[in-house]
Order: sequence, then C-alpha cells, then structure tokens
Amino acid sequence: MRTEVFKFGGSSVGSLEKIRHVAELIKEQKNNIDNLVVVVSAMQGKTDELLDMAKFFTETPQERELDLLLSSGERISSSLLAIALDSLECRAISMTGRQIGMKTDNTHTRARIKSIRTDKIWQNLKKGNVVVVAGFQGIDEYGDVTTLGRGGSDTSAVAIAAALEADRCVIYTDVAGVYTADPRIVKNASILSEISYDEMMELASLGAKVLQIRSVEMAKRFNVDVVVKSTFEPNLPGTVVSKEGDMENKVVSGVTGDKNQARITLLGVADKPGVAASIFKKLADGKIVVDMIVQNISDKGLTDISFTVPADEIERAKQIISPLAEELNISEIKADKDVAKVSVVGVGMRNHYGVASDMFNVLAGEGINIIAITTSEIKISCLIEERYFELALRALHNKFMGEK
Amino acid sequence: MRTEVFKFGGSSVGSLEKIRHVAELIKEQKNNIDNLVVVVSAMQGKTDELLDMAKFFTETPQERELDLLLSSGERISSSLLAIALDSLECRAISMTGRQIGMKTDNTHTRARIKSIRTDKIWQNLKKGNVVVVAGFQGIDEYGDVTTLGRGGSDTSAVAIAAALEADRCVIYTDVAGVYTADPRIVKNASILSEISYDEMMELASLGAKVLQIRSVEMAKRFNVDVVVKSTFEPNLPGTVVSKEGDMENKVVSGVTGDKNQARITLLGVADKPGVAASIFKKLADGKIVVDMIVQNISDKGLTDISFTVPADEIERAKQIISPLAEELNISEIKADKDVAKVSVVGVGMRNHYGVASDMFNVLAGEGINIIAITTSEIKISCLIEERYFELALRALHNKFMGEK
Repeated sequence: MRTEVFKFGGSSVGSLEKIRHVAELIKEQKNNIDNLVVVVSAMQGKTDELLDMAKFFTETPQERELDLLLSSGERISSSLLAIALDSLECRAISMTGRQIGMKTDNTHTRARIKSIRTDKIWQNLKKGNVVVVAGFQGIDEYGDVTTLGRGGSDTSAVAIAAALEADRCVIYTDVAGVYTADPRIVKNASILSEISYDEMMELASLGAKVLQIRSVEMAKRFNVDVVVKSTFEPNLPGTVVSKEGDMENKVVSGVTGDKNQARITLLGVADKPGVAASIFKKLADGKIVVDMIVQNISDKGLTDISFTVPADEIERAKQIISPLAEELNISEIKADKDVAKVSVVGVGMRNHYGVASDMFNVLAGEGINIIAITTSEIKISCLIEERYFELALRALHNKFMGEK
Repeated sequence: MRTEVFKFGGSSVGSLEKIRHVAELIKEQKNNIDNLVVVVSAMQGKTDELLDMAKFFTETPQERELDLLLSSGERISSSLLAIALDSLECRAISMTGRQIGMKTDNTHTRARIKSIRTDKIWQNLKKGNVVVVAGFQGIDEYGDVTTLGRGGSDTSAVAIAAALEADRCVIYTDVAGVYTADPRIVKNASILSEISYDEMMELASLGAKVLQIRSVEMAKRFNVDVVVKSTFEPNLPGTVVSKEGDMENKVVSGVTGDKNQARITLLGVADKPGVAASIFKKLADGKIVVDMIVQNISDKGLTDISFTVPADEIERAKQIISPLAEELNISEIKADKDVAKVSVVGVGMRNHYGVASDMFNVLAGEGINIIAITTSEIKISCLIEERYFELALRALHNKFMGEK
C-alpha cells in the first residue's frame, strides 16, 4: 500500500485553469498511489487580498478574527479542487483543518501544531477518495480557527505525511526543485537532485524560499521524505529533501545570500558580563531579528560589537539601542545599509576543512573585502559590500558548483 | 435586559465602506441593547462569484463541496465586521454556524435547521461582546458544513432570535420596509407600518422579495417580532411583521403580482379520479412549480384543466405532459406565455366579503378580461393578459390602498 501527501502552493492553484491542470495531474498520479492526500494553499494573491480588506479597518485587526478571515482562502481552493477532481471522475472529498482534527496552540496567526486525528482521513481514504485538505489552518482548544503563518500549508502537508506515516510528501510548486543558487543571478545554477534537511534549512532561511523552514524542521523530526517538484513540469525529477542528502558527493550544496541586510556597530562597549545580553534582549523585545553577531577581542576593557538586522529595521534598531549608550559606555553607534551576506551551505563541509579558506580566496580574487564572518557546522557566511553581491554569488557558485 | 438580533443582507455589507457604515450603526444601537447578535450575509455578488467558480468545472458540482465553498462568503463578511466593530472600540467576536451549534439536516445547499446551542452565544454576549454570526450556514450530523439556500441568512437570524427569546429581530436591508405594491410600477405605493406573518408570506412568495419566506414561517411558528428596516436610512420606522399585523384597520395590505407566468390548458381530459393527480405528479417529478390550477366543470365526462408555470419552464412542462396525452384522452395541449398574475393580499378580507367583487369590478372597469381566478383566505389572484399587468396593479392599488 502506497501512501503519499501532495501539496500545491498558491501559484499552482492561482486560477481556475491551473486548478483544472492540478486536478488532471492528481488523477494521473492517483493510478500509482493507493492513498493520496492533497494539501492546498489559497489561490495566489487571495491571502493578501483578505489581509488588505482587514487592514481597511485597522492596522491591528484582532488575530482571532484575522484567522477566521484568512482561513477562507484555503476553504475555497480545497472545495474547488475537490469539485474539479470529481468533474474528471476522480473521487474526491475536501476536509478542513478542523475536520482532520488539526489541533494547534492558540497563538493566532502563527499557531503551532499539537496533533492530527488520522482516523477521519483514513475513513475517507479507504472509501477510495482523494482527500483534499485545506492547508494553513487548524483549531485551538476553544474550537476557534487558527492559522500557521505564511507558508503554513507546507507545514500542514509535512505534518499530515508524518501522522499518516506516508511514503513521501511531494511539494508541488512553481520551480522545478531546489537550485544551487538563485538562477536570476547565477545563470548556470542547477537543480539539486538531493539535499539534506539541515542544508535545506540553511538555504530556506537564507532566501531560497522554496519551503517554509518549519516544514523542514518537522520533516527532519519525523523523518519524512520530501520531494520538491514543478506543478507545470511534473515529469522532471525535482529535489529530494531527506536525512542524508547527498553528502558523499558534494562538499557544498548551494550558494545563497541576502541583500536585505544592514550592519550596526557599537564602538567602545564595556567588556563585562551581561552587556551583550542586555543589548540583544532589548532588540528581541522590540521584535527585531538579529542575524550575524560579531564581537571583537577586548582592548583595555572595551570592545566593539557588530550585528546585522533587516535593512528596513535599522532606524528602529538604532532607536532601541540609543538609550543604552550611556549605561553601557558605548562611545559611538555606526550604521551601514550597503552591506550584503553571501553564504555557502553543505553538510559535506563538516568533513572538509578547505571550504572556508576557498571561500575567502574566491572573494579576495574578485577584490571583495570581507566585513564579517560567521560559521556554522554546515554554512559559512561573509558580510560584504552590497555592490559586490551578484559578483560574489557567481564567483562562489563557479568555484564550488562549477565542476558539476 | 434587552436582547435583539440584527441581520444585514449582502447589499448592506457590499463593500468595505458599507461594512464600516454598518459597524457605526451597530455601535450606536448597542447603547440601547444589552445583548446584541448580528447575523451577516456574504458581501453582495460573492455567493454568485463562488458559484460561478464551481460551475467552471461542472454544471453539477457535489453539493457537499459547494456548501463548503459558499459558506466562505459569510465567514469573510462576519470576520470583517467584527474587525470593523473592534476598530470603533465596540467589542465584537465572530462566530461561525458551527460555533453557534447551528445543527441542520444533511440536505446540502438547502438544509433545514434542527437546533441551535445558545450557551456559547450567551457566553460571548455576557462578556459584553456584540456577537457577529456568519449567516446562511450550519453543520450536519457528520460535522460537514451545510447551507440554508438563497436568502438563508434571514432564516439564520430569525432562528437565533427564537432560540435566544430575543425581543425582536431587525432585518436591515436596502429598502425602507415592505411596500403596498412594487414602487417601480405603482408610484404612490407606500411603506406598511405593520403586516402579519400570513400576509408577509403571501407577499413574499408573490415577488415582494424582502424576506425569505422560510424565515417568515419560522417567525410565525416561534412568534418572533420581525422588523424590516433600511440600513441606509435607519431612522425610518420600517415595517413590523408580527402575529396581528394591522388587521383591524386595513382590509387589504398590499397589491402584488407576477409577470413570469405561463398558462397551459389541457382540453378534453377524461374526468375520472386520479387524472389530475397523475398530471401534477409528473410535473412535480420534473421539479416544475405549478401555481394556479383551475378545473372547469365536467361536460359529458370530459373536462378542461388549466394551470400556470414559470414562463421559462413552459416548454419543459409541455414535454412532460405530452406522453400522457393518449393515456388520459387529452385532445389538445394549449400554451400561452402572455399572461400575468395580479393579487390583493390582506388578513382583513377574512371578515370582509366585498373584496373579490371589488377586485373584479376594478379590472372590468379598465377593460381587463379575467382568465382565471384563485383565492385563499387572505389572497385573491386573477390571471390576466400580460400587457395589462401594470395598469391592473395601479388600478387595484388605487382602489384598495388609495384612501390611505
């Protein structure tokens, strides 16, 4: 018995014609799959349209009401897809988040999944139905509708695949898989046939944007094989995201980056316990996401701390820190928007020591100065001047992925 | 403690601006009402838009899926209205059909209400919230979404008012109440201040179209006082629909009619038991609504039967009857599309014998021939040539309502 979960994103069901295409794809695939659950997002643009309607009244709509509003988008696309499948004589039934027993906590607009009741899904599968599930939504302990945040349908799909112990979860999207780099910048970027969960998380958070990062975390935790494929070219193999990835063959899986970075440097900070904590606590309280943090070695009890924030948060970040300047003996706060981050990602680098030096060499060879460096087990990131961003990505891709 | 239920139709919440207007109206009214429940329809045009999307795939979408699809419209308008109220600092919470425990049978797309759980509504009311309920929808015993048919939000509102034992149910709509005749035809038609349930049912089924007839039946059964008012001129008194109406003061409450009628006459039908039954059974099986039925007295064991059907069903009605012609000895089937029905309605006529003859006199005075007559306790209808329709309505209105 083969059980699979498919997920179709907003661009895949962005029009009635596309929904019919998706229905045809499902009908054909159903021949090889005994039990098929299909999770759908809202039609492209629908969630934003609903959000804009709420924002007509207030910038801060009640989150409980917002969730009821936004969840309509997936109810519409799931019922339409079930109707489209039935019109092709492929038996189908829609189920809402509530009907599959998708219980979440009550953190409206970004709820976390607690459990799924599989008995009702199995009941409908055993009657021979393709079960079409409205993604992105669940219910909390009060029976109120919750949503899982942007890209939440990916997480719905992986969670259902885990609960059903499905053979795999196929994420159908508008790209043919996970690229080695952004193909708009790096012309010879190619599709990876395999990638590990860890690599995927590093790539996703850095801007690859193929899968919601929470869904990858969940896939890793429950060891769900995920395949990313194109809805419009379903015969291409796509990228398999799994435990092992392709670590034996490639040191680096992908090259990525983020131009939306700004650097703040605090000069002359007192180098004593708790200082860094108090700074970053304030920023966290202000809901500012801090990315790279670099602290230089101390000189005469004073140190410099640099960190990056999203470029459009830089003024707010400065405002939050300014009141601390006297207390923490900060002599100067410098800000720079014209920076960008470039990264190489790969589980293979755990066992290969040359990657960092290769990366620095490539950048030096292009005359690019490195402002800051951070590393994790499977990722090396360098902060550079923004104007060199595309050049750096191409050079790094050529070095690490060029031999493919 | 004063408890009221308001209902706003699709034209009242047809845009974001109109939803804000409705929120302002509610906020003002809330000052005089301890417990206020507001039932909303989908935004104008939304239900048709969703239906058209389903029809893209098939003319006969599964009704279970259609109900999930269509119910989205009211979820959107109810959450938006709750957000709009909150933005005016009027505390509000939305509830879906499921959340108010609106249990129905499982006749999808035209479900009938079985029960409502009031405890959850009271919980939210007692916290000081305006409770905004998504109209038109409930759930069946399987937990699937059902809808109540076109105009179902009226029925939702009256059912909730009955369950809460509310002081009254105010139907806010785009007209200022129930007219004595169609004001597009009869220029001096006026708004009735009071009308009885029975009169309202006769008027509604004849084309007054202010309230879904099921909602009036339900209001009658549970003795709910209903007020029809204008959303855009809320200071006008509107029309009170209640048990007594205004029977002491007026013989006739309104003049109405239907141009969308066609007459079929069966000549030379054998006059024996079961013949009429077999004809109308066939038409009912074909889901054709038959309105006026007239059977002439028998002559030599043969009779003529005339009846009216909606004009656009006349060909289908003829096709259904033709196979019976030989079996029932029908000598000829005649059809006529150029007919119209005019009616006078009023509970007062129960005790006034002159209404029928007054009506026939008025029509005769205008040179209008009466083709057929049907009467009920509170209504007299005449079938006439269609070209005299407007003339007849004006003359009847002038006779019966003119003295006002």
